[in-house]
Amino acid sequence: MIQVAIMGFGVVGSGVAKIIEENQALLAARLSDEITVKYILDIRDFTGHALAGRVVRDFSVIENDPEVSVVVEAMGGVHPAYDYSLKAIRAKKSVVTSNKELVSLHGRELLEEAKKNGVRYLFEASVGGGIPIIRPLSDCLAANEISSVTGIMNGTTNYILTQMEENGAPFADALSDAQARGFAERDPSADIDGKDTCRKLCILADIAFGYQVNPDLVTCEGIRAISPRDISDAAEAGYCIKLLGHVRRDSEGITPIVAPFLLSRTHILSGVSGVFNGIGVVGNMVGETMFYGHGAGSAPTASAMVGDIIEACEVPSSPVLWKEKAPEGYIKDVSECAFARYLRVKGTRADSLTVLAECAVRAVSNGDETGFFLPAMTDEELAVILKMIPELDVVSSIRIFTPGEFVPKNG
Amino acid sequence: MIQVAIMGFGVVGSGVAKIIEENQALLAARLSDEITVKYILDIRDFTGHALAGRVVRDFSVIENDPEVSVVVEAMGGVHPAYDYSLKAIRAKKSVVTSNKELVSLHGRELLEEAKKNGVRYLFEASVGGGIPIIRPLSDCLAANEISSVTGIMNGTTNYILTQMEENGAPFADALSDAQARGFAERDPSADIDGKDTCRKLCILADIAFGYQVNPDLVTCEGIRAISPRDISDAAEAGYCIKLLGHVRRDSEGITPIVAPFLLSRTHILSGVSGVFNGIGVVGNMVGETMFYGHGAGSAPTASAMVGDIIEACEVPSSPVLWKEKAPEGYIKDVSECAFARYLRVKGTRADSLTVLAECAVRAVSNGDETGFFLPAMTDEELAVILKMIPELDVVSSIRIFTPGEFVPKNG
Repeated sequence: MIQVAIMGFGVVGSGVAKIIEENQALLAARLSDEITVKYILDIRDFTGHALAGRVVRDFSVIENDPEVSVVVEAMGGVHPAYDYSLKAIRAKKSVVTSNKELVSLHGRELLEEAKKNGVRYLFEASVGGGIPIIRPLSDCLAANEISSVTGIMNGTTNYILTQMEENGAPFADALSDAQARGFAERDPSADIDGKDTCRKLCILADIAFGYQVNPDLVTCEGIRAISPRDISDAAEAGYCIKLLGHVRRDSEGITPIVAPFLLSRTHILSGVSGVFNGIGVVGNMVGETMFYGHGAGSAPTASAMVGDIIEACEVPSSPVLWKEKAPEGYIKDVSECAFARYLRVKGTRADSLTVLAECAVRAVSNGDETGFFLPAMTDEELAVILKMIPELDVVSSIRIFTPGEFVPKNG
Repeated sequence: MIQVAIMGFGVVGSGVAKIIEENQALLAARLSDEITVKYILDIRDFTGHALAGRVVRDFSVIENDPEVSVVVEAMGGVHPAYDYSLKAIRAKKSVVTSNKELVSLHGRELLEEAKKNGVRYLFEASVGGGIPIIRPLSDCLAANEISSVTGIMNGTTNYILTQMEENGAPFADALSDAQARGFAERDPSADIDGKDTCRKLCILADIAFGYQVNPDLVTCEGIRAISPRDISDAAEAGYCIKLLGHVRRDSEGITPIVAPFLLSRTHILSGVSGVFNGIGVVGNMVGETMFYGHGAGSAPTASAMVGDIIEACEVPSSPVLWKEKAPEGYIKDVSECAFARYLRVKGTRADSLTVLAECAVRAVSNGDETGFFLPAMTDEELAVILKMIPELDVVSSIRIFTPGEFVPKNG
């Protein structure tokens, strides 16, 4: 039985508890062992909550319980998170954290302490929320001299800039909208002034280039001054505006900066919209790479933390063994699935094309061919329609990828 | 000293040797040990090559040398790669491979054999070339029930489709162009008929969903039939056309498919152009993620393989310790760097604006404000120009991200 303590039961800490509950069978299989939350450290009142019985207010209960092997630090801030993390590590417990402020200021020290005590200090969730970036950068790309890291690492500011771009809204309105939707805090300064991005950039620079970078030494500009006119001028020239954290290395050292940048619409990071994050890494062997996903939120952040818990348990590593014999019917035939579809036919006979035109959400005519955009249907349903049309000459038939709709008909 | 044998000294195998040579200091630091290529297994003649002295033709030399701890399999094909991999594993050597055909057919068996023998069988390079995807999927996202995997996993076909889209070229011309540039093989059928994508999709499905999927059981359609008209009709409706490998799970089983799809221009994968690959993974906790980079080529593929060699050596794992004290001058000030810049000024006085207009690569006028797109220059250089203009009212000044140009002036 793997026993975990969660420090701080807010959005992130409760997300970790939820994954351990909801994906229990999966985790037991991955860990070859049961996993349970033994303690929750929080000073608030959780009367009535299913886990209320596990809440403690005194850290030493966790520190002194040898059954707790992993401590999840989701408190935020430097104090007392730093003190508790240090004590947990010295009590031979691995610590998993999402605390970018703490990692950017004291990561090196806590890593060293963890090494000394034969445990782990892991912080995948501190940068990019649920996006795997810390381990890909430090392990998978370990054969590379990294030349630069460039990321959209703050969902709040990216949401605001995307709103300004899509609706022509002024900064203040987009900020209010983000606050109303819970994407920005009441005091949004850490996000919109670039401080949050800066902490994450420093953590990535530490890993990529080997020296701890103090966020206070980094040029850091926010997005308060960006106007709709900036965005429309940029768009006219083929750019969008993104708050980037960027650090580049040359032979002498590194140049880190956090600032809004005009970014070419052809750059892969320009497709990172709304609350999503994207982090680009360039290595001397791998070239350009990019990692994309939800940079914040309860479940994505907790996903990264539970991944780190599994890592901390030092389960015989990836990739997991897969089984040879799948159950009967495991692989379904796509012919049972409904797909939206682009169908181009020859001929201009009005009577026959009417059938398709009535089904289609859109049609494009050109010369003697017409392309129809048909809604999701199975091969069989399509065949029924096509049979109604005599002498139909189908020139082209291509499925449309519709993430929400593409589901097996009877699934 | 970590001694490695490379089987197959073609594009990929020689890339591995090159990284071990070029990034030697880096690797020694990561491994806390020297690493060297002891043998190269290849039947071709490498007379004159710097590593010619290490070439052997008999696999048993490698098999029977206890000093070799990691074998890099870059032979391709099932035979004799399968036989040699099995024998190497049984001789207690970890095997690192880029061989998608072998992994998709015999991965399960070789993983099991590796587990039995206390060594590793690793294949990060078999999917997505240099892109970290196998380990992120199996480790970082281990807390998730995966619901779908969707990828552009073949650079050849993506290059062809991108060419058709950008130049309106017919398929045959785009294929010839890809062949001329070395992006497509003389016999391109494994790529353009989707077979390569299918093998990679099956490997990802194996890891994500836990059962081995035989590529022969997957619906697999290629891109031979795609015409410029398909692409222009799709574009008119807001889509591009991409060869996707897609697999989705529901409660009963999985539905895998490889086929060209119309993909919305708002989807993050639509930004994956040319020879690049992008692989999207959706998990029940993390939501949508995407991994992007070079899906093929000597250095990127070798980057993934050397990452696996490091993993096989079971170095105390990520993240690497970073140092506290950086050398003097390590962090450079961005004011020393040249940036291209968007600068908007008020006023319409022709004489003053002429100075900026002469520098600018582009200008956008609107009302009494003009936005200038200036080429890369340092803050100091910009100040010199601005001083030439009396009573200038700068409304906005935003850097432009230009990956190629943004380099320290004296770097």
